[in-house]
Amino acid sequence: MGKVVTLGEIMLRLSTQTGDRLAQSHSLNVHYGGGEANVGISLANYGHDVMFASKVPDSSLGEAARKHLSRYQVDTRFLLTGGSRLGLYYLETGVGERGASVVYDRAGSSFAQMEEIEWDVAELFREVDLFHVSGITPALSEKWQTMTLELIKQAKKAGCLVSFDSNYRSKLWDQHEAGAVLQKLLPYVDYCSAGKLDGIHLLGITPFQKEQENDSAFYYEEMQRMFPNVRGFYATKREVYSASVNHLVGTLWLDGQYYESAVHEIDPIVDRVGGGDAFAGGILHGLLEQLPPQKIVNFATAASALKHTVYGDCNQFNTKEVEAFLTADSGKIIR
Amino acid sequence: MGKVVTLGEIMLRLSTQTGDRLAQSHSLNVHYGGGEANVGISLANYGHDVMFASKVPDSSLGEAARKHLSRYQVDTRFLLTGGSRLGLYYLETGVGERGASVVYDRAGSSFAQMEEIEWDVAELFREVDLFHVSGITPALSEKWQTMTLELIKQAKKAGCLVSFDSNYRSKLWDQHEAGAVLQKLLPYVDYCSAGKLDGIHLLGITPFQKEQENDSAFYYEEMQRMFPNVRGFYATKREVYSASVNHLVGTLWLDGQYYESAVHEIDPIVDRVGGGDAFAGGILHGLLEQLPPQKIVNFATAASALKHTVYGDCNQFNTKEVEAFLTADSGKIIR
Amino acid sequence: MGKVVTLGEIMLRLSTQTGDRLAQSHSLNVHYGGGEANVGISLANYGHDVMFASKVPDSSLGEAARKHLSRYQVDTRFLLTGGSRLGLYYLETGVGERGASVVYDRAGSSFAQMEEIEWDVAELFREVDLFHVSGITPALSEKWQTMTLELIKQAKKAGCLVSFDSNYRSKLWDQHEAGAVLQKLLPYVDYCSAGKLDGIHLLGITPFQKEQENDSAFYYEEMQRMFPNVRGFYATKREVYSASVNHLVGTLWLDGQYYESAVHEIDPIVDRVGGGDAFAGGILHGLLEQLPPQKIVNFATAASALKHTVYGDCNQFNTKEVEAFLTADSGKIIR
Amino acid sequence: MGKVVTLGEIMLRLSTQTGDRLAQSHSLNVHYGGGEANVGISLANYGHDVMFASKVPDSSLGEAARKHLSRYQVDTRFLLTGGSRLGLYYLETGVGERGASVVYDRAGSSFAQMEEIEWDVAELFREVDLFHVSGITPALSEKWQTMTLELIKQAKKAGCLVSFDSNYRSKLWDQHEAGAVLQKLLPYVDYCSAGKLDGIHLLGITPFQKEQENDSAFYYEEMQRMFPNVRGFYATKREVYSASVNHLVGTLWLDGQYYESAVHEIDPIVDRVGGGDAFAGGILHGLLEQLPPQKIVNFATAASALKHTVYGDCNQFNTKEVEAFLTADSGKIIR
Amino acid sequence: MGKVVTLGEIMLRLSTQTGDRLAQSHSLNVHYGGGEANVGISLANYGHDVMFASKVPDSSLGEAARKHLSRYQVDTRFLLTGGSRLGLYYLETGVGERGASVVYDRAGSSFAQMEEIEWDVAELFREVDLFHVSGITPALSEKWQTMTLELIKQAKKAGCLVSFDSNYRSKLWDQHEAGAVLQKLLPYVDYCSAGKLDGIHLLGITPFQKEQENDSAFYYEEMQRMFPNVRGFYATKREVYSASVNHLVGTLWLDGQYYESAVHEIDPIVDRVGGGDAFAGGILHGLLEQLPPQKIVNFATAASALKHTVYGDCNQFNTKEVEAFLTADSGKIIR
Amino acid sequence: MGKVVTLGEIMLRLSTQTGDRLAQSHSLNVHYGGGEANVGISLANYGHDVMFASKVPDSSLGEAARKHLSRYQVDTRFLLTGGSRLGLYYLETGVGERGASVVYDRAGSSFAQMEEIEWDVAELFREVDLFHVSGITPALSEKWQTMTLELIKQAKKAGCLVSFDSNYRSKLWDQHEAGAVLQKLLPYVDYCSAGKLDGIHLLGITPFQKEQENDSAFYYEEMQRMFPNVRGFYATKREVYSASVNHLVGTLWLDGQYYESAVHEIDPIVDRVGGGDAFAGGILHGLLEQLPPQKIVNFATAASALKHTVYGDCNQFNTKEVEAFLTADSGKIIR
Repeated sequence: MGKVVTLGEIMLRLSTQTGDRLAQSHSLNVHYGGGEANVGISLANYGHDVMFASKVPDSSLGEAARKHLSRYQVDTRFLLTGGSRLGLYYLETGVGERGASVVYDRAGSSFAQMEEIEWDVAELFREVDLFHVSGITPALSEKWQTMTLELIKQAKKAGCLVSFDSNYRSKLWDQHEAGAVLQKLLPYVDYCSAGKLDGIHLLGITPFQKEQENDSAFYYEEMQRMFPNVRGFYATKREVYSASVNHLVGTLWLDGQYYESAVHEIDPIVDRVGGGDAFAGGILHGLLEQLPPQKIVNFATAASALKHTVYGDCNQFNTKEVEAFLTADSGKIIR
Repeated sequence: MGKVVTLGEIMLRLSTQTGDRLAQSHSLNVHYGGGEANVGISLANYGHDVMFASKVPDSSLGEAARKHLSRYQVDTRFLLTGGSRLGLYYLETGVGERGASVVYDRAGSSFAQMEEIEWDVAELFREVDLFHVSGITPALSEKWQTMTLELIKQAKKAGCLVSFDSNYRSKLWDQHEAGAVLQKLLPYVDYCSAGKLDGIHLLGITPFQKEQENDSAFYYEEMQRMFPNVRGFYATKREVYSASVNHLVGTLWLDGQYYESAVHEIDPIVDRVGGGDAFAGGILHGLLEQLPPQKIVNFATAASALKHTVYGDCNQFNTKEVEAFLTADSGKIIR
Repeated sequence: MGKVVTLGEIMLRLSTQTGDRLAQSHSLNVHYGGGEANVGISLANYGHDVMFASKVPDSSLGEAARKHLSRYQVDTRFLLTGGSRLGLYYLETGVGERGASVVYDRAGSSFAQMEEIEWDVAELFREVDLFHVSGITPALSEKWQTMTLELIKQAKKAGCLVSFDSNYRSKLWDQHEAGAVLQKLLPYVDYCSAGKLDGIHLLGITPFQKEQENDSAFYYEEMQRMFPNVRGFYATKREVYSASVNHLVGTLWLDGQYYESAVHEIDPIVDRVGGGDAFAGGILHGLLEQLPPQKIVNFATAASALKHTVYGDCNQFNTKEVEAFLTADSGKIIR
Repeated sequence: MGKVVTLGEIMLRLSTQTGDRLAQSHSLNVHYGGGEANVGISLANYGHDVMFASKVPDSSLGEAARKHLSRYQVDTRFLLTGGSRLGLYYLETGVGERGASVVYDRAGSSFAQMEEIEWDVAELFREVDLFHVSGITPALSEKWQTMTLELIKQAKKAGCLVSFDSNYRSKLWDQHEAGAVLQKLLPYVDYCSAGKLDGIHLLGITPFQKEQENDSAFYYEEMQRMFPNVRGFYATKREVYSASVNHLVGTLWLDGQYYESAVHEIDPIVDRVGGGDAFAGGILHGLLEQLPPQKIVNFATAASALKHTVYGDCNQFNTKEVEAFLTADSGKIIR
Repeated sequence: MGKVVTLGEIMLRLSTQTGDRLAQSHSLNVHYGGGEANVGISLANYGHDVMFASKVPDSSLGEAARKHLSRYQVDTRFLLTGGSRLGLYYLETGVGERGASVVYDRAGSSFAQMEEIEWDVAELFREVDLFHVSGITPALSEKWQTMTLELIKQAKKAGCLVSFDSNYRSKLWDQHEAGAVLQKLLPYVDYCSAGKLDGIHLLGITPFQKEQENDSAFYYEEMQRMFPNVRGFYATKREVYSASVNHLVGTLWLDGQYYESAVHEIDPIVDRVGGGDAFAGGILHGLLEQLPPQKIVNFATAASALKHTVYGDCNQFNTKEVEAFLTADSGKIIR
Repeated sequence: MGKVVTLGEIMLRLSTQTGDRLAQSHSLNVHYGGGEANVGISLANYGHDVMFASKVPDSSLGEAARKHLSRYQVDTRFLLTGGSRLGLYYLETGVGERGASVVYDRAGSSFAQMEEIEWDVAELFREVDLFHVSGITPALSEKWQTMTLELIKQAKKAGCLVSFDSNYRSKLWDQHEAGAVLQKLLPYVDYCSAGKLDGIHLLGITPFQKEQENDSAFYYEEMQRMFPNVRGFYATKREVYSASVNHLVGTLWLDGQYYESAVHEIDPIVDRVGGGDAFAGGILHGLLEQLPPQKIVNFATAASALKHTVYGDCNQFNTKEVEAFLTADSGKIIR
């Protein structure tokens, strides 16, 4: 089992009951999450020794975020306390043809307002195998662009593998800015979650032309050419039939080879948020455990499919459960 | 934006949670609605100036119905207070193969027991563009048959366009009685919601014979022949695969031309009640705004499809949201 | 209408809300059920005079189980009070690809710990037409193997028809033990619920070879050969697409003839537990009422399909409702 | 244990959550009850053989009312099916200084609209020890005034003891009408629930003058003088401090002697509806079991106090539980 | 009935269920409110023509706030749309000895960030009788200090009476700043809600010395001396026994005379937030209707007591209901 | 801050909503707790380094218990996995005069069935300051009597202080057995939670005679005489007015001196379970931190009072919050 640090923002999520609009809701469900926190919880579920680094306010809400992480055995010693607020977002759950709708209210959060690296970096990365961060963090402020690069460099120097999830959010910054930052960070990255759209819009790859061939491999190959230092790229391909039905395939490019999982027909979707993080968590677990690449992508896609069946941002299944799911007849009662 | 009066009964709806039978329910969800109230709310959502005319008891329940309407900016100055009770119905929500089941308890309601037109009709129709009423109202009593005709005539005289939704309910009256009344009212009507079954059973049209051709156009053409005064007919065609899955197409006959929307695959249905009213609301909005006919039927069908994704009788989407839905990829998260 | 005794264990079921894992649940839904209790309730719903024989502790939970039965007009005069606990199980509801998961906690229950037949057997079977018991009961203890055989013999002697549901549970005993007991009991049985897997694994039938032919009839014929005393065999065939979608066909072998119902496409499944008991209840009702065999299997399969649309272990539909469902257009609102 | 018939209306109760007004409620809690049904359930809880006679519609709601009664072992063979609706009332729960508020919607119910005695009276009263009816029934219609008297006379003739609860409801009739009817019925009554206000307003007793003496005994003595045939009178005296705090004393006049219970300080009140019926149930149980009068009034008052601690109209405690409550230290955990 | 404008911030309130801490809550109840919005709703409930002026974001949450106001017939034509977020606060409900705890997250709201008066002031105050604003608004920013003064002057000039609620919040500004602003505003104010603590800490009045005399009158007299232009001062005196029990007295100083209501013993408190606004609403109603001063303070205190019995920030009782409450026996069921 | 091990059973608690009986509940609230786990969580909340030693089954329920502990930063490395079931109990919440009622179902649990000390004792007590155990553990089996003594001796030998909570449960064993065991254990104990009833019934102290004097000090003095090795005794004195109102005083005997807290009037009680554990947690915190004795007992009683205001077995307040509560005006909103 590995020792891992994930670093990023954790937010309060307030979501409606399926079938209610936000403006008609009389109560909202409470969850806590964020890409890096979710990946951290997945890895802790699989038995890794995980620390989550972030900053939350000294309030009941900051405390609640901490307790959420502790519940899943994520170490919160690097979860700083201070600043003015916990970022939050409202999720109007989608159903059928109607997609989910998100109202962000994250500006000015304790994490986004950080102006310098407040952790003792030597301590943070001591004996750590893997450092995971995502493209949301540099999107939060110019300071965070600098600090993200600095942290990645320090992690590298301390001997960590660096994992980066591009996670582009158009509401936070535009493609040019994001692309420029991405290109500065990737030379230090070992494992990168990025897909076709990232390739085209952030890295400027010319779209693939040949119809009905495997375009995923094409984009990975192009990205590999640009960043030969990256050992692995991975992403999910998602056919969105509706907000309630998606088909999901996991893809992995590792050491110059392309791997793809079977298709998971997710119907109905209980909660899609965190589905990508569950995939990333599965991939990183496989890489840390040095599993065979096909097994890695199968495991990660199964983990992601399972995440879609439970409420909340984080995956709640351990290694044994994900593996049992991979071999089980779909939907059978276990009794 | 137009000025609109809709008139009819508003009822309390008590519905079960999906998966519970009525006799096993320990709590019931509370909604308020009725065809004409629902159409009024849709039009108010789209920015029209809407008044709803009806009568409710002087009780907490009458007050609740009023507050429901006000919430959506529907003007309740013509919502009279008095009489003995608020009509209600129990809805055992359907799921899969099992259809919903309705228990009506509406006899003797404040509205049904009205014996004369209690509104100042001159005031009611002053500067009003459109008066909307449905076939449920004359079904409530003989008095209401007379009063409905009288109101339609008065609206006409005051210069309003008259909109009528046939809305046949077999539990309230039989086809002969309903057909006779419909034929008395239609000569004063400008826009009429009526479909194939209304054509055959209420208006006596001989069923269409040619297989696999467009029968909707056929029935509209026949109805147009009978009532040349009606400028537009409209209705939805619904393929009922189960209580949870319907495919929906909107149809419109306007100025002698037939228009049809794309198919909406509604899966799963959250709450079907009010789906037809949402369609009527969309059509009347398009007519008031003088949109192109194809755009009208597309908008109205989208509005109806959206209604199926939310709990409660009334549509909760504004013009911008319906239009965004029409152009969006189905089911994508907006974030 | 017949007079019926069903005998077996009744348990508390604690189930999660769909989309929540057991370990993340803050409240659990409470139901009471067990195969024989569920069959009893179905038969009481259809107007039969049903008594349920079992034993529950003298506690609020035993009282709750009793009230559950009384609610459906099941006579509880043979529901003994005593012993130490009510067996229970936790049900983590499945959804989509993720199957339900059951955690049993039934060892040491008042019923399982019975050491002798505590009912006055003459009284229990007086003027009873049908005695129904299942393979779960002899799986509970060696004593219960002996007692089950004894009860079946006594019932036979008292002139009852004997109905037996094989209901193999791998968590309770292994196939050899179960098969041996089954073979001891079946010579006294008139109606038996058993399917292909029971045939192969418990009765040692060599699997059917010819592809794409009707294998159900093959197994029934083999079983009939082994136990010529059994008048009817029945079972459902279930295509499990996912935990949310199953296709269901009912099969019946009666007096040497094979009958099969139409396919029910159950989508979505609300609650699958008790689906087989609802089928058994429908079959036994048809046999008691001496309906035509095809009608029996149609009715029973419809009853089972309906059960899948409601929460809780027991079927909540009466004869009129099941029959209306058989003839209705699927999913239409009844209003 | 005795054999008892109670007869009256059973209604659906829709109540708010404490702290919500009716007009702001999005769901309502469902209970079923009525004075005579509640008394019947109490007596069934205490082990008596109870039948409840009434009429409910042939609908899910009628079925739900029946299941409610069966759940508590009340025999529903005399619960007729037919008529048009189940009466209902809305209960806006009170709290603190704000009293509860009731909106009745019971006119035109299946029971209220009965025009003749539809039961086989010989069958209804066969071997019955006690017939219980209340003043609500004759308040429903003129027909019911006649029928109530007729039923009481028939019960008397069949050898039943007759129990009558005056239960005056000012929303149903005025004091003169109620008083006139009461005076016609009381000559046939053996046990009568009536208190000071009934004495003054319905029976015309001149109010008691002497301050700070026991006025309950005074009124009972006056009533006894008027109706020497009545063996026992009983009522609760309730100090209403607020909707959340009441002090309760039970009083009983039996064979010319006055008995009074200790004071129960009910704080907080969970649900007050049915508190009087629980008292009546306790008194009738004591009379049927021929307990000592002081024990009867103690038991009945304890039963009533317990009823105030649970949701729903009916008492849910058996004899053993009421007796344990009488001797327990108030509020101690039993563990 | 008067025409009224209230102006201020409206926020989302997320509150826990009583008995749960914020960090342990899995869902939060949703309400919308703010001092001036609450006062506006009270006045609309009493039949006044009320407009609420504020600014909310163009999001589902802004829309929800608007619908909340419309529901109670408050006119939202001056509710501007724009800016970045809706202010919010988390309320951990108190109980017994444990007081409620509030976490504010209101910085940067659409309203707080307003930099100029965006309403057409002539339009805003046209024919308005009363303009109501509170001390929270100038506490939001320096700009708002200037704008509040400007708005009050403009209202005055347009012929409105000006009502001001001091509403000091120590988390927003300190006493010196608040006192300085208050002293600038009060010379333009006609009716002012301010109590003893405002007198001492904001206006610098030397605390009252004589024990056990009426100190409220003393402070009002002092304030009157300082601001002879103010016609009336009012406030509640609250004995806080616990978070669940308060005793409440209303006080009013009008035209140089002191009036005081009876004591309301509020036990239990359902929701205390908005209790002061309900009192202010009652006072302003009485002043607009020119009721006798004693009646005004009685009505207002009753309105405030009633508010404590319902969930949510706003009073939900109309004039008739408040008056009935004043004359009713406390806690009696109305049936 | 100290390093602490607490050891004992952790159970699932299923509790009703206040106002519902167990037999009428359709859902049950889920909590996890046990005396030693609860004390451990309190100490972790106060910043101590706490490990909880126990054994839970390898199931979702065992996992849920572990996550509950982790959430509060309790280290679960000594929480073994294995055995057959998680013990549970049903709690029918009390209210007013009606006390709570508990149905235990804990026999045969993974912890109770332990037959030998499965922890590496050297590892378990390494550098531990305090070992806390209670009288429930030796009550579970004879093996546990031996093992408890052995563990205490080993802890002692490893240099830990030993804390023991007598926690007598009459449903588990009788007073003689409990007394005999207690007398064997106390010679090794440093801090003991025991009160008057323990003194009389378990230790055989002759009851105190002098009325209206401080009997607590008397019993502590007697116990001190019997066990001079014990440095401190502590307990709460509880006046039970009802299940909703208790008055609570904390008492402490330390180094031969008696200390007593102020009275806390707990009204209403939200959840009493765990109130004693919260007191113990506060005392042990104070002892570990070497606070002045009066401060210790004040803090512990405040912690216990706070626990009564929240749902669940464990205290959810940190040191700062308990201290703020001690100095706050009772029930004031903090805003």
